[in-house]
Amino acid sequence: MVDALDELYTKIKTRRDADVEKSYTAQLMAGGTSLICQKVGEEALETVIGALAGSKQNLIAESADLLYHLLVLWAHEKIEPENVWAELKAREDKSGLEEKSQRAR
Amino acid sequence: MVDALDELYTKIKTRRDADVEKSYTAQLMAGGTSLICQKVGEEALETVIGALAGSKQNLIAESADLLYHLLVLWAHEKIEPENVWAELKAREDKSGLEEKSQRAR
Amino acid sequence: MVDALDELYTKIKTRRDADVEKSYTAQLMAGGTSLICQKVGEEALETVIGALAGSKQNLIAESADLLYHLLVLWAHEKIEPENVWAELKAREDKSGLEEKSQRAR
Amino acid sequence: MVDALDELYTKIKTRRDADVEKSYTAQLMAGGTSLICQKVGEEALETVIGALAGSKQNLIAESADLLYHLLVLWAHEKIEPENVWAELKAREDKSGLEEKSQRAR
Repeated sequence: MVDALDELYTKIKTRRDADVEKSYTAQLMAGGTSLICQKVGEEALETVIGALAGSKQNLIAESADLLYHLLVLWAHEKIEPENVWAELKAREDKSGLEEKSQRAR
Repeated sequence: MVDALDELYTKIKTRRDADVEKSYTAQLMAGGTSLICQKVGEEALETVIGALAGSKQNLIAESADLLYHLLVLWAHEKIEPENVWAELKAREDKSGLEEKSQRAR
Repeated sequence: MVDALDELYTKIKTRRDADVEKSYTAQLMAGGTSLICQKVGEEALETVIGALAGSKQNLIAESADLLYHLLVLWAHEKIEPENVWAELKAREDKSGLEEKSQRAR
Repeated sequence: MVDALDELYTKIKTRRDADVEKSYTAQLMAGGTSLICQKVGEEALETVIGALAGSKQNLIAESADLLYHLLVLWAHEKIEPENVWAELKAREDKSGLEEKSQRAR
């Protein structure tokens, strides 16, 4: 089974050089790191505001927006999802109190 | 093959009621929506700042932190990853210019 | 001398009930806390991204946007600037190491 | 009467080169643009979350934190408050519908 995010990432890469008139993904890519970061930050805000407002449907929709824009950022910066999954798994090989030191700021 | 995020989500749910002295996940869950949202927002900021600073390794690490905290938020709000994957797939069944209207704010 | 922010705050209050077709301030007020918070968050992001990009002119413009939207939030929540100035002054009556405990998260 | 923010800005500049062991302001300055931006973003988030939670006292306290960190950012980037007040006043010399084009994203 292909993972939803891996599949979406592959589509994003194919749209990278599409016509910016026709593809929102290509527009973001053309806008560069600053524009994509602005959108990732805005979608994170909308996710947080949606969650605080208590709407599950909103939180699902905003989370999807956030993930899409995060994948665009990865594609733009040439990071493969596999790199992030590996990082998550490496952290998961630890547990209990140890969790904290790796994750906390 | 089990998807990395689905697997992590399952682990997060099992830690939900763990001892808060021993589990960072349980601490977050105990802190409620406001605390988890604060962390999601902070990790999104660190992701964006990492990307703007141009460090790929930083961006991978911060993206992992962001995804972990986002999954904790989903678990706290009783949203299953499958709900978000379904939302992403529904959007992907459209294409080209249409992308824009569904995604843009 | 009238302080620039106090003066702007007074103008914002007079526009609160203006025609939403003609006043952006009235539109924000009509949108409620969620909309105003979304804008405050977005302007903070733009301020941060502007600063990281190293453009002084950008940072000045984005800081002005952030302050304007913050004042709209105060007006909407019925907080007077004087309340915030008093809070800042109370903190300033301490110094040195003590600074840290009051300010740090 | 001296404006609260102008006065605070002056104090921040005098602390810029203080002992980082004793001054939180000096610690921030030593951390550079990335650290200060991270803090500005975090305080903006706390302001927004405080406002959404409906606590006026929280919103006042978080707004004070946000303004303090914003002034540290200005001091670090060598922007004077007067530059921002001038920008705000220039915008205020316009009105009604025109507001929108200058402010909206």
